[in-house]
Amino acid sequence: MFDIIPIKGGLNNVEGFFSGGVGVGLKPEGKNDVAFIRTDEPALVGALFTSNKFQAAPIKHFKRYGETFLTNFVLINSKNANAMTGIAGINDIDEIFSSLPITLNVLNPVMSSTGVIGSRLNKTKITKAFELFDFNGKNSDAAAQAIMTTDRFKKEICLKVDVGSGDSFHIAAIAKGAGMICPALATMLCFITTDAKVPQGEIISLLNEAANESFNAISVDGDTSTNDTVMLISSGKSGVWNREAFREALRFLTRELALLILKDGEGSTKTVAFEVKNAVTSEDAKIAAKALSNSLLVKTAIFGEDPNWGRIASTIGACGIVCDEEKLYIKYDDVLVYSPLQKEMSAEIESAANRVMKQESYKICCDLGMGDKSYTAYGCDLGHEYVNINADYRS
Amino acid sequence: MFDIIPIKGGLNNVEGFFSGGVGVGLKPEGKNDVAFIRTDEPALVGALFTSNKFQAAPIKHFKRYGETFLTNFVLINSKNANAMTGIAGINDIDEIFSSLPITLNVLNPVMSSTGVIGSRLNKTKITKAFELFDFNGKNSDAAAQAIMTTDRFKKEICLKVDVGSGDSFHIAAIAKGAGMICPALATMLCFITTDAKVPQGEIISLLNEAANESFNAISVDGDTSTNDTVMLISSGKSGVWNREAFREALRFLTRELALLILKDGEGSTKTVAFEVKNAVTSEDAKIAAKALSNSLLVKTAIFGEDPNWGRIASTIGACGIVCDEEKLYIKYDDVLVYSPLQKEMSAEIESAANRVMKQESYKICCDLGMGDKSYTAYGCDLGHEYVNINADYRS
Repeated sequence: MFDIIPIKGGLNNVEGFFSGGVGVGLKPEGKNDVAFIRTDEPALVGALFTSNKFQAAPIKHFKRYGETFLTNFVLINSKNANAMTGIAGINDIDEIFSSLPITLNVLNPVMSSTGVIGSRLNKTKITKAFELFDFNGKNSDAAAQAIMTTDRFKKEICLKVDVGSGDSFHIAAIAKGAGMICPALATMLCFITTDAKVPQGEIISLLNEAANESFNAISVDGDTSTNDTVMLISSGKSGVWNREAFREALRFLTRELALLILKDGEGSTKTVAFEVKNAVTSEDAKIAAKALSNSLLVKTAIFGEDPNWGRIASTIGACGIVCDEEKLYIKYDDVLVYSPLQKEMSAEIESAANRVMKQESYKICCDLGMGDKSYTAYGCDLGHEYVNINADYRS
Repeated sequence: MFDIIPIKGGLNNVEGFFSGGVGVGLKPEGKNDVAFIRTDEPALVGALFTSNKFQAAPIKHFKRYGETFLTNFVLINSKNANAMTGIAGINDIDEIFSSLPITLNVLNPVMSSTGVIGSRLNKTKITKAFELFDFNGKNSDAAAQAIMTTDRFKKEICLKVDVGSGDSFHIAAIAKGAGMICPALATMLCFITTDAKVPQGEIISLLNEAANESFNAISVDGDTSTNDTVMLISSGKSGVWNREAFREALRFLTRELALLILKDGEGSTKTVAFEVKNAVTSEDAKIAAKALSNSLLVKTAIFGEDPNWGRIASTIGACGIVCDEEKLYIKYDDVLVYSPLQKEMSAEIESAANRVMKQESYKICCDLGMGDKSYTAYGCDLGHEYVNINADYRS
């Protein structure tokens, strides 16, 4: 038995970690734009990266150390992705790290970047952060601010996990990401710290499992930014390892973060869970749920609060899965809008569905009636703000 | 040797065909909403349909006759797709046809519909058209108007093809479609008539070849509306069959129509050709070109005239094809914005690229440098008008 308790303070609660963020002029108006996370003793790190073929320089740099290894320093910058910068981009990272104070005794330092593709890092500005950082501070909030790009709010979560007999550990994270209309190219970064004693052999598989139900449920397979990164760093300082408790806490934490990222969808006003039930295969259920969450016409109908279930049906029919219009049921929350016996929507049903769509968040459920597999994907609407934000991202 | 000469008058020039369109109140303000195309003697028809699993009732009705067959009557309505209407939707079509004047001697009449999914046809209104049609008229313009939905302009083309020795034939078409942002769910309909004597064994293969280079280059594979239809009807009245001339004329006609549909993209202001060169396989080239034409972030950058080539590169990297950032070249018309030796864009290059992007139409070329296969897809920008049109399509 264990208890998962959300607490305030982000990364600051996790034993063995220091963090902070400062502004060095990458962002306007002195906003925080460079962050660090460090440990007092070497900590185990594992990470999941984008499947984009053009992985950014910081990812290539990370991979030089291997899949999981010991580190004590993570540097993060916003406004510049350091992607498509070739060998020079990787050398820039080494050069930046060579300016870190010797007293930090850095081991295998890693970097993570988000922002515009195709520009070299401004090394002078970034290394200036090393003079401004309070390396012994616990300033999770400042770090969370520094990694934001088009985010409307910072994402910071901490869980305390009691595992009985007075034993407990912490797991916390900061994250950025907001481009859920097209998760394609809007970088998602997430840095998870824990003082649980995660075994090296399990760190990647646990991270994979949690990401599949969270970050992957809000993004398109194989269609990701050059920089997407989810990093898990374990100091082990609590001395506690309870696999089941850690697994549940990690799943809870990543799902909460994924929903925060979705809620912050660029210009979005509503979040919708797309549940596809009773598909022949899990893959079919996932394909259909993601097709719904990514359909522009579904997204604009959500924005317009238009209970046009035909767009839902057509997306299901178009996505290539096994389905049959004589077995399909479509519901908006509890309102049945289509069934084989009720093909036309009455005025009463239409207004009930419209009331569901006026909520900030609701569920659209498609029961395929073909098998017993399910998947839920999460999406948001597409409105004018999305166009405003993306028509000129760089300015 | 043969000459392809565009002429005015649409379907009216093609021997053996009559056509027209009237308004029966499906659209507001008395606009034309029901059209017919008929022949005086039975004519050969072949068609390509959507790959959507939920094919609309008129498509199921068509297929009852077979793949190619003789017909002398096509009825088309807008505002209602007659999709997801089950057996009742098919019976509605038979019932409508039973009201046609006996004097027309209809043989295997077929129907085509576009509009909202999930509502039964208004049979009373549609059959009222039979009292208003001038069945012996040549009113291609009225028919082209009647099939429009969100189209901003009608699409009507006619070609006269001289094949030497005084022989010639005509090929003409009316089409509708404008939802190129998400070809997914915006129906594309195209009715091609010809007096060339097309052999029954070749009608489908010729149509397939032409569609692959035209309508398919502006739409997503397997992600199509419930109603998409391209129909070719041959009266054979010219007595002429010149395979090569017909093939070229059909390719020319369908490519022109596809570009017209693209130009009419919902709310679009620019059309862009995405050429992917020197891919390892033709499939890779096609996947990458289509990924570019469908990327929301590319589309919004085009709208914003922002030469952010990083979004182009990232889309190429994300689409799953074989590529290498050290072999990639990206050009906007003649302006080279990225090459392995020029990873950063100078201010001069950026303003040159920005000038290219101010044009109404231009080309973005990605030379992958991996092989020798190419494909060109066509896309348009995404702006506020798209959101306005699609947030409440049904009203």
